Amino acid sequence: MKVMVGGTFDPLHDGHKRLLSRSFEIAGPSGHVVIGLTTDTFASHKTHPIRPFAERRADLEQYIEDRNYTTPWAVEALNDRFGSALDADFDAIIVSEETLPVAVEINKLRREKGMRKVDIHQIVCVLAEDGRWISSTRIYRGEIDIHGKMMK
Amino acid sequence: MKVMVGGTFDPLHDGHKRLLSRSFEIAGPSGHVVIGLTTDTFASHKTHPIRPFAERRADLEQYIEDRNYTTPWAVEALNDRFGSALDADFDAIIVSEETLPVAVEINKLRREKGMRKVDIHQIVCVLAEDGRWISSTRIYRGEIDIHGKMMK
Repeated sequence: MKVMVGGTFDPLHDGHKRLLSRSFEIAGPSGHVVIGLTTDTFASHKTHPIRPFAERRADLEQYIEDRNYTTPWAVEALNDRFGSALDADFDAIIVSEETLPVAVEINKLRREKGMRKVDIHQIVCVLAEDGRWISSTRIYRGEIDIHGKMMK
Repeated sequence: MKVMVGGTFDPLHDGHKRLLSRSFEIAGPSGHVVIGLTTDTFASHKTHPIRPFAERRADLEQYIEDRNYTTPWAVEALNDRFGSALDADFDAIIVSEETLPVAVEINKLRREKGMRKVDIHQIVCVLAEDGRWISSTRIYRGEIDIHGKMMK
């Protein structure tokens, strides 16, 4: 099926990697994956510095290319929480426990526009060694590495 | 991946069919699908009469066999809302918009038992001609047929 997923992906940690691998698994070889990548302007509301779009995009694309998925895919710029998800013809949005509310809002807005709703697949967040979620903020703070290993 | 799905499946309508086809699609050829089928005792709280378990099971199994899915699958009896989903090792539970709260509760109970949570895939309910959900209750009342066509 056709799926959409989004994020800032900086740095690309094990939570992002699960989000991506699940997206490709759910899409299947005859499906399609669109990965929305937040623009620098949109990502600037984060509490920690973010690398430039071009660098994040290069890392993300390299990671996906290395996996040799047979499913076609594309990265698109996300200027807001929704990107093309309000208008596109697709089947399912893949979110983490953290971003589930965005998917619920996308379906509400699609319905208001007279468009059909999409499936919502909520993946389980990957846990760090301490049992809490791996997140870019925690990695930036130096609490954990990208695999969730404790650094302090 | 390994997925679980559940229902009473009486009669097997287009909403159930989407639930099943999505389950097999998400599981993929190397995955596994467990379909929980409510027992007569558990299903007896419904507001309308339900056909016996053996008959419902035969129809369900015939429908799946006719699809020639390559993914292995099994039907198991559901004596309550959870069945084996509180203890089994699996990856995702597939629910409709109507049954989403059960999946959320399953994850809460798994967590309390120290087990890992599972992904939740919420499919969009299939709409009848009048734009409302197809449901067994509406079919039983004679409002719609199993494809959501208006009968009155």
